[in-house]
Amino acid sequence: MKWISDNNVLIVGLGLMGGSYAKALKRLGYKVYAIDRNEESISYAINENIIDDGKSFPDPELISKADAVIFALYPEAFREWIRENQQYFHEGVMITDVTGVKSSIVYDIQDMLREDVEFIPSHPMAGRELSGVKSADDKIFRNANYIVTPTKKNTKEAIEWCKSLGRILGVGKISVLSPEEHDEMIGFVSQLTHCIAVSLMTCSDDENLADYTGDSFRDLTRIARINENMWSELFLMNKDKLIEKMDVFINEFSQLKDMIKNDNRAGLCEKMKLSTKRRAWFDK
Amino acid sequence: MKWISDNNVLIVGLGLMGGSYAKALKRLGYKVYAIDRNEESISYAINENIIDDGKSFPDPELISKADAVIFALYPEAFREWIRENQQYFHEGVMITDVTGVKSSIVYDIQDMLREDVEFIPSHPMAGRELSGVKSADDKIFRNANYIVTPTKKNTKEAIEWCKSLGRILGVGKISVLSPEEHDEMIGFVSQLTHCIAVSLMTCSDDENLADYTGDSFRDLTRIARINENMWSELFLMNKDKLIEKMDVFINEFSQLKDMIKNDNRAGLCEKMKLSTKRRAWFDK
Repeated sequence: MKWISDNNVLIVGLGLMGGSYAKALKRLGYKVYAIDRNEESISYAINENIIDDGKSFPDPELISKADAVIFALYPEAFREWIRENQQYFHEGVMITDVTGVKSSIVYDIQDMLREDVEFIPSHPMAGRELSGVKSADDKIFRNANYIVTPTKKNTKEAIEWCKSLGRILGVGKISVLSPEEHDEMIGFVSQLTHCIAVSLMTCSDDENLADYTGDSFRDLTRIARINENMWSELFLMNKDKLIEKMDVFINEFSQLKDMIKNDNRAGLCEKMKLSTKRRAWFDK
Repeated sequence: MKWISDNNVLIVGLGLMGGSYAKALKRLGYKVYAIDRNEESISYAINENIIDDGKSFPDPELISKADAVIFALYPEAFREWIRENQQYFHEGVMITDVTGVKSSIVYDIQDMLREDVEFIPSHPMAGRELSGVKSADDKIFRNANYIVTPTKKNTKEAIEWCKSLGRILGVGKISVLSPEEHDEMIGFVSQLTHCIAVSLMTCSDDENLADYTGDSFRDLTRIARINENMWSELFLMNKDKLIEKMDVFINEFSQLKDMIKNDNRAGLCEKMKLSTKRRAWFDK
């Protein structure tokens, strides 16, 4: 299957991410349908011409029109939806997702899925500190990293199809990782950083801080405005890897604290030289 | 003393911050002189018309011309410079600084300072992850928070003078804090955040991370590109308060970790709701 413009794409879950996919694909000329239990999101998206049609329930007729399906639901809801509604897919449908955890859901879903339908998981590293279809923005994909996480069950064709979805969205670097590698990496670069930002933000209840702070505190807490329902689910579904990463961080942070306590200026300088060198990788 | 355009301003330490003051004040029509031990910085600044004149040593003649002096040195170098060169100031000179720690140097300097010269400390919450006069940029002051930290020795006139310096630079909110309040606050919003960023950056030596990460990791580590000599000095000079803040953070972070470990979804949601609410103070 290729991304050709007579494909019908179904988005399941029309929030910030689902809405951003819808906008991007609509602009590229695809027929875009959506299912979201929030009636208002559907009617907004139809009125704004973000989708061609949509329903607030898993309408068998709409589902059966889809050639490609993009799931932008929370992980548990995604698994549930497949279990209950996969019967309505037509033969040969290609499915992908945007879910932020992989190994805890990908195998389950592939195992229960019909033989004539393929699920190739992916994760665009894009987002905003906002939620809902009204905040959808197809510019979030530009130059974003994009990760495809196939299992042994996936075909080469599906992997190629999923990469080409990234390409037509205009993402930057496209990588292929196993679900386990993905979760290991995401536990560090995304989940740990959100845990840090939340913890930093809950350290102080001094409202005046906003009058004193520079950019550093703002930068470190930008992501502390967080969707608690989604992130608590993501944290718990990647619990073991996340806790491992939290321990690595606590260890580094405690080393730095000891150096400060012991007036170990040489040690501090070494640490900071290392952090400066490593941070440069991200500014290439 | 007022900020009138026939004032001669001397900048001591012509790096990123000193250079940014120089650019701003020159643009406003002041005569700007500078002293920096780096000959190249001085000649660059003269050639680029950032300063009117400058020397690479504490030239008594140049120092005696100054009506106002802005110190943009590292804290220990600042104290040393005053000890060795204050004899050259003319009577009534007004001095301020940009130093990121206050109680560990402000009292020392005021105690050793000549009676006919006043030092009113301040701290503009502005900067860049770059150093040197070539990176100087007077736009860094725009809407930045600016803090004046007087002691009992300071006159009302000096406090007003120092606030008006902030105003002509175009800063945003101007606050007045005691040196101790400043250090308490800065230990949290600035030093703790730099310790977190450095520790996060030194957790992993995987160069490929840059291919997978989204904005969150980039945001949390932007300040991990750090001037190790300056920051190790700042950390150690505010050691007690910084360690206190580091412990508060470790405590919050460990609480979050325990919630994840114990599948305490309700607790996680509470924490994230709190962080979302508090972060909103910074987006007004």
